[in-house]
Amino acid sequence: MEQIAYVNGSFVPLSEAKVSILDRGFLFADGIYEVAAVLDGKLIDNASHLARLERSVGEIELALPETTARIQEIQKELIARNNLVNGMVYLEVTRGADTGRDFAFPKGDVKPTLIMFTSTKDIINAPSAKTGINVITVPDLRWARRDIKSVALLAQVLAKQAAAVAGAGEAWMIEDGKVTEGGSSSCFILTQDDVIVTRQNGSAILPGCTRKAVVALAEERQLRVEERAFSVEEALAAKEAFVTSASVFVQGVVSIDGKKVADGKPGPMTNRLREIYVEFAKATAV
Amino acid sequence: MEQIAYVNGSFVPLSEAKVSILDRGFLFADGIYEVAAVLDGKLIDNASHLARLERSVGEIELALPETTARIQEIQKELIARNNLVNGMVYLEVTRGADTGRDFAFPKGDVKPTLIMFTSTKDIINAPSAKTGINVITVPDLRWARRDIKSVALLAQVLAKQAAAVAGAGEAWMIEDGKVTEGGSSSCFILTQDDVIVTRQNGSAILPGCTRKAVVALAEERQLRVEERAFSVEEALAAKEAFVTSASVFVQGVVSIDGKKVADGKPGPMTNRLREIYVEFAKATAV
Repeated sequence: MEQIAYVNGSFVPLSEAKVSILDRGFLFADGIYEVAAVLDGKLIDNASHLARLERSVGEIELALPETTARIQEIQKELIARNNLVNGMVYLEVTRGADTGRDFAFPKGDVKPTLIMFTSTKDIINAPSAKTGINVITVPDLRWARRDIKSVALLAQVLAKQAAAVAGAGEAWMIEDGKVTEGGSSSCFILTQDDVIVTRQNGSAILPGCTRKAVVALAEERQLRVEERAFSVEEALAAKEAFVTSASVFVQGVVSIDGKKVADGKPGPMTNRLREIYVEFAKATAV
Repeated sequence: MEQIAYVNGSFVPLSEAKVSILDRGFLFADGIYEVAAVLDGKLIDNASHLARLERSVGEIELALPETTARIQEIQKELIARNNLVNGMVYLEVTRGADTGRDFAFPKGDVKPTLIMFTSTKDIINAPSAKTGINVITVPDLRWARRDIKSVALLAQVLAKQAAAVAGAGEAWMIEDGKVTEGGSSSCFILTQDDVIVTRQNGSAILPGCTRKAVVALAEERQLRVEERAFSVEEALAAKEAFVTSASVFVQGVVSIDGKKVADGKPGPMTNRLREIYVEFAKATAV
């Protein structure tokens, strides 16, 4: 059965899921997206994703065409229509298609575009969860508002393509000698004195939903967490390194630019946080 | 008659001109664009635009789906089909639509997307050519590779929206106390000692096609041109200020953040360069 996508009110086969070439998402990257994981047919940490969606659209003065409650209904209907068990739901909202191309916001009554589609992925049993991933570092070329989850992702595309070419699973982006974040993940280390370190939120990074949950879960368990920038040198001297995201949950980083992190295997804290996160995810799924 | 657009080999009514929601232009801003002016049904400075297109796609390792010679044929056919006399042809090439969403380049044989559409504009007789425009300044929030003409334009959208709200015709973007460029134009001043100043090319700005032609035309006429960064203070102390782009040619700037430039009218050098450019444009149109 062909996959079903959602486009502006309609559920359509993915091959027929299209937007106008005048859509501002296509012409200007004038849009926001979110990706929520699905386990056993249920959405993971979705309230957090929808809250971030509301924040992002607010930052660019884009009105959601549906309430977040209705968006969640559509997400769930799309999961049902695709019989999706494990994977992800991608959603994107753009400032819609005007009658022509003008950088400034449309003056008339142009309805924002809302699209969604699903993909299948067994996040829990992904082989890289056991083996960890290699990462490379690249300069962080992105704009100044990385806290907005916009579809202006060309810098991340180039970063993650460089990683793919190098046989790595992620690119860590470096600015002023410090790691900002991964191409599509938040970066963490565990220092030799057992402090979990991840960069503080601000305009330099996206406020990761999985990052937020992992930090909260760690703090609830009295683990020491410090939110501050760290360097690659510090990561290479750490006990463990890992990344978090909606599509990998918690994933060990076993090498950086070809240099091993610790013994080159995901460490016990990484594995513990992954277990804790999966437990949280399943318990709070909707 | 409905406007005709071009999408991947077909000429279709604009209302039917669509791309997949999986198109990497829509998901990742993984695409490049160009806008060429049209006067009397002919393309202006198009070789320069197509050369820049080739450079931009090369910088992101995107292969054009058609030769530039063929692209020009399509541009010309689109002009003919729309009976376009004066206006613009917009073209965009993206890394195409894969079967799913992965940041790294598609592994399979995914054909890049090529779309074009036209718009009507009487650039020569635009009222702002006589009156000049007001500009505001905004911080330059863009990424580090502004020399690539990508569709990751959200920063420019926000800049030009801020200008529109302020009743201005353009936003000049400021970085480290100097003007980089306008939201969709190159910035120039004429100093009190009659030097035409515009920022040097590099990764901080797009290498403007109209900018390049105006600099060359000025130099051919023994006018003094300096390519270097300048500040807003210098612009406000200048004899004249103006912007160049394919969609306005040469356009006077009469105020910056509400402060008049000289007597608040486009100056004689601005008007002269505009005439020279229009003459060049018509003489070299194809």
